[in-house]
Amino acid sequence: MTGTSVDGIDVALCAFRPTDDVDRPTLDVERTAMVPFSDEARDGIESVLAGSHPISDVSRLHTRLAHEYARAIYEASIDLDYVDVVSIHGQTVWHAPQHHTLQLGSGTTLAALIRRPVVYDVRSADVALGGQGAPLVPIFDWAMLSHPQEHRVALNIGGMANVTILAPGQPTTSVRAFDTGPGNAMIDEATRLMFGKRYDTNGEIGRAGVLRTALFSAMAAEPYFAEDPPKSTGRELFSREWLSKLVTAHHHPSAPSEDVITTVTELTAWSVANHVRRYAPHTTRIIASGGGVHNRFLMERIAALCEGCTIDVSDVHGISSDLKEAIAFAYLGWRTVMGLPSTIPSVTGAQRATIVGAIALGS
Amino acid sequence: MTGTSVDGIDVALCAFRPTDDVDRPTLDVERTAMVPFSDEARDGIESVLAGSHPISDVSRLHTRLAHEYARAIYEASIDLDYVDVVSIHGQTVWHAPQHHTLQLGSGTTLAALIRRPVVYDVRSADVALGGQGAPLVPIFDWAMLSHPQEHRVALNIGGMANVTILAPGQPTTSVRAFDTGPGNAMIDEATRLMFGKRYDTNGEIGRAGVLRTALFSAMAAEPYFAEDPPKSTGRELFSREWLSKLVTAHHHPSAPSEDVITTVTELTAWSVANHVRRYAPHTTRIIASGGGVHNRFLMERIAALCEGCTIDVSDVHGISSDLKEAIAFAYLGWRTVMGLPSTIPSVTGAQRATIVGAIALGS
Repeated sequence: MTGTSVDGIDVALCAFRPTDDVDRPTLDVERTAMVPFSDEARDGIESVLAGSHPISDVSRLHTRLAHEYARAIYEASIDLDYVDVVSIHGQTVWHAPQHHTLQLGSGTTLAALIRRPVVYDVRSADVALGGQGAPLVPIFDWAMLSHPQEHRVALNIGGMANVTILAPGQPTTSVRAFDTGPGNAMIDEATRLMFGKRYDTNGEIGRAGVLRTALFSAMAAEPYFAEDPPKSTGRELFSREWLSKLVTAHHHPSAPSEDVITTVTELTAWSVANHVRRYAPHTTRIIASGGGVHNRFLMERIAALCEGCTIDVSDVHGISSDLKEAIAFAYLGWRTVMGLPSTIPSVTGAQRATIVGAIALGS
Repeated sequence: MTGTSVDGIDVALCAFRPTDDVDRPTLDVERTAMVPFSDEARDGIESVLAGSHPISDVSRLHTRLAHEYARAIYEASIDLDYVDVVSIHGQTVWHAPQHHTLQLGSGTTLAALIRRPVVYDVRSADVALGGQGAPLVPIFDWAMLSHPQEHRVALNIGGMANVTILAPGQPTTSVRAFDTGPGNAMIDEATRLMFGKRYDTNGEIGRAGVLRTALFSAMAAEPYFAEDPPKSTGRELFSREWLSKLVTAHHHPSAPSEDVITTVTELTAWSVANHVRRYAPHTTRIIASGGGVHNRFLMERIAALCEGCTIDVSDVHGISSDLKEAIAFAYLGWRTVMGLPSTIPSVTGAQRATIVGAIALGS
């Protein structure tokens, strides 16, 4: 898994064993690793995201990322003889819901390099069927984190933040899930903009500041937050430009820089809590994962704004919060080779459920 | 099939039925069509080939082309219920042999649209294994056009021209095949440059001019022609810029414009004949296909320069010369779903043979 935060590759070696319930195999996460991107790959991604390029740059990066994935598997000390299939998300470089989506990282190249089948390009089919192409993790949340009695929400805070609403005993067909807005992306951008640092460690900067209501209101007025799901978003909307424009307009240069981080953190917490209140008012447990769980200030603000909810990290449910998406995409790859559809039309808005991705054979 | 000439999509509905020889199924071409690209798609391709673009343009075109393929299948009146698998080449927008290659046209999108498995992205695995990623048609030439007694060459003249050398009784492992240089691409570019027309109908303009030796020698000095195979080329090298630079340097503006077309046509014929003489001196039959067979002047020049050879169009061997590549890529898709490797290391220079492409399931 490589997310919108462009820090590196999360690797999870997962063993799925069938049970009587076809959607719910047993899951053992046997090995995990987080392998940083090479500088060349990170620069390549950031450059392609930022500007105009000749097509040769795109082609080079597509192949380069496959080599990065192969290296990540090697550095995670995974014995490929023991692996039936590798599932990759690819690096999203464009996502226009219902229109087109592009993940770089050539599955055919990776399959040839590692000589194992690779499932990849898992979002396009849903987009082709009129869907948002996201989120795809809900089928995993539904299979692995739902509860027969409890109203739960699975929350993942990566670059963007998303929720899956898990009512007791619900069939997949009525599951709702969507992106609530930015996760770490705007907090990271604000920290970079104001302090030249890559992220706000443990939320310490955010905790030190004061909420600025003018900036908060301007950000919260972004129409995405008021839209009804199904919906999904990304750095096309919540971009460096989006943030810096609002900060320039609503934050006085002589005011403390910490306040920007505090306010952007509050926006993130508010956007999660607001969506939970609107669409899952019976929720008593939120199961959180993603890099955002390390931002203690953010987690406290979410807890404060979601009254009546217990907030767990997913680790207490057997799913590493740092690697939940990687584990979920391994599950999607497993579903594809098992011939099971992974998209949920009530989540993505597509015409029908579909088997996701393509399989590159690699032999 | 969509080639480098960016005119449209060649569709061939092929029925393969197994025989005792696993590589040589019977082949019936049941329906064919040539469906022009929409103006939007053609403009999109030419624009991406020509300049720098934001990644959103690449993503849009990748998806757009899948919709074009779906439309082509529909316009060819093919009953999808009767189709087991669709094989697409995709539009090559970059090809750097041994490094990286990129074909646009999303297989996962097409599979979702037509609800049939799609084999696509057939060149990357070979490139990942150190190969040229081209040519891929030789396995088809070997299976369908070789002869137990006769020394043959299969010649395809598309945007680029390529040959497969077929010695009698030869195993796949020793087959040689490579691009000889430009096919129609430089003749078309010259016709556009000098006459503002898309191509030289039947070679009439070329026939009307005189060979200019200074321009010819300058073009023939391009180092690609002297390289030993395995090798492949494309519009990265034989580009509008390559041609216009040489024409500017070596063609006097007051000399007849026809002479440029004559000279570029001679270059194309010479580059084919020169490679046949160098690498297949025993050849007695050349089986020609591709759009270039309609350029009668070009075909006459090839025949004149290949003394002792009969030149057939592939139609006399049961393979439509206009659709040979489309038929060959259907065969490659058939090989992939049958689990058969399609690349030939002696042709592409890769470390090993590989099953080509990925399979998008589409259900």
